[in-house]
Amino acid sequence: MGNKEVTFGVENPGYAQLRQILTLCDSPIKALEIDQQGLKVGSQLKGCDYVCVTPSHQYPTTVTMSVERRKALLEQAQKDDFVVIEDDYESEVNFIEEPLPALKSFDQHGRVIYVGSLSKSLTPGIRIGYLVADKTLVRELRKLRHLHYRHPPSNNQRISALFISQGYYDSHVRRMRRAYADKWLLMQQGINQYLRNCEVHSTEGSFCFWIGLPNGVTSQLLREKATSKGILVESGDTLFMQDDAPDNYIRLGFSAIDSKKILEGLAILGKLIDELS
Amino acid sequence: MGNKEVTFGVENPGYAQLRQILTLCDSPIKALEIDQQGLKVGSQLKGCDYVCVTPSHQYPTTVTMSVERRKALLEQAQKDDFVVIEDDYESEVNFIEEPLPALKSFDQHGRVIYVGSLSKSLTPGIRIGYLVADKTLVRELRKLRHLHYRHPPSNNQRISALFISQGYYDSHVRRMRRAYADKWLLMQQGINQYLRNCEVHSTEGSFCFWIGLPNGVTSQLLREKATSKGILVESGDTLFMQDDAPDNYIRLGFSAIDSKKILEGLAILGKLIDELS
Repeated sequence: MGNKEVTFGVENPGYAQLRQILTLCDSPIKALEIDQQGLKVGSQLKGCDYVCVTPSHQYPTTVTMSVERRKALLEQAQKDDFVVIEDDYESEVNFIEEPLPALKSFDQHGRVIYVGSLSKSLTPGIRIGYLVADKTLVRELRKLRHLHYRHPPSNNQRISALFISQGYYDSHVRRMRRAYADKWLLMQQGINQYLRNCEVHSTEGSFCFWIGLPNGVTSQLLREKATSKGILVESGDTLFMQDDAPDNYIRLGFSAIDSKKILEGLAILGKLIDELS
Repeated sequence: MGNKEVTFGVENPGYAQLRQILTLCDSPIKALEIDQQGLKVGSQLKGCDYVCVTPSHQYPTTVTMSVERRKALLEQAQKDDFVVIEDDYESEVNFIEEPLPALKSFDQHGRVIYVGSLSKSLTPGIRIGYLVADKTLVRELRKLRHLHYRHPPSNNQRISALFISQGYYDSHVRRMRRAYADKWLLMQQGINQYLRNCEVHSTEGSFCFWIGLPNGVTSQLLREKATSKGILVESGDTLFMQDDAPDNYIRLGFSAIDSKKILEGLAILGKLIDELS
């Protein structure tokens, strides 16, 4: 990673694997706070060389970064001389309104590295991602990639290129959005009905819901109980950086679950939560 | 790469990209001599932590490492405490005799990491390779790979697994060997006939020939002249590690060349060499 030590800022809670990847650089990693507008700007970003952010749907809270916050983040990047790595996670799944423009689209000074993938929208197995950045950086990254694994397999690049260029990808994403919107509405309905005592973050979309459990209910215990009833719940504790991570958050994914089972499952989960409170 | 500095030994001449990959580790790289039996064992290997070797067909000289040399290398690895990374390059293309057993098959003490790929035998674009090593190492490498690019695309793993398990790969390699044997014999014939003043390393196979040009003929100049006649020749100078690399070696690949053009091409090349001598 060159000679100068760099500091990475990451969202907290955030994508645990990103933190693991960054440990390969032997660089300091700073936990950054988020609120209902997304990543908080200001003093916490000072001293960061790279700020990693998920503006479309913050992982795991699903919060969408407001336009004002996006602009403020870029202004500070220019003022305090840091680079923003925009992971455009779940940009395709907005069920209420049109998605906001990417951070990169406001980028006047080449401060943003935009990263996306086909893993969520098409399939993770194909291992195709993309990046929008300065030409010089792209050239260097190509060189580095060449030494690591040369290039993504040609057949998958070709398949993806044809699928996109012939318009199938766009219509696939539209169909996917419609299909998941129905499930998402069922989730909203079930959560309002059965998880009344939980703290639910309002969201415009995502394949997941981030839920704060009532006082005294821990995510690990709930996960254990839910598993025995055939309901898989992700505990949120591993997504926090601090040692005393909150133990009362869960992440509920729904994309792979049959619509008919959503309300029934949430009813069982709600009953478990009420029993544990 | 952890904290301890390690020394890599690499064959010279050798695969230039391997040296480039190793520079990512910021570790010393030692150039190792080869002779007609392959990599020379003895004092030059002392002080190496990893010795990278291409025993089936040394790249680029195509020399096959003798069985005695293989055993001596492993004995020294055990005595002087180094690990051998065996790149089983072009193991599939022996046209005269059956291939010798891999170094790994003599490995009594877990000293060998065996590496191979489907790039030459099937297609490079599919990006599938394989590795045989100690379970602990494989576990660690999986973790590291996960952080770098997660895994090779599932579709290509599946395709390759089916192709191999149903026997198609073995019959493909047999057919490929027959098809290339004809071209290889034409190359032998043409080189003997038209490149009489060159130094040719005898070989049992390979997709390439490694040719020493007569005194005074430089590979770069020959390459230039040959290109203008429609013949693509690889200059060998970039495959040596030393600053004063020999400038009189060329590498002639033939796998993609139409059989009908081989003798004709070598006749033109031989004439050019004679003119430059």
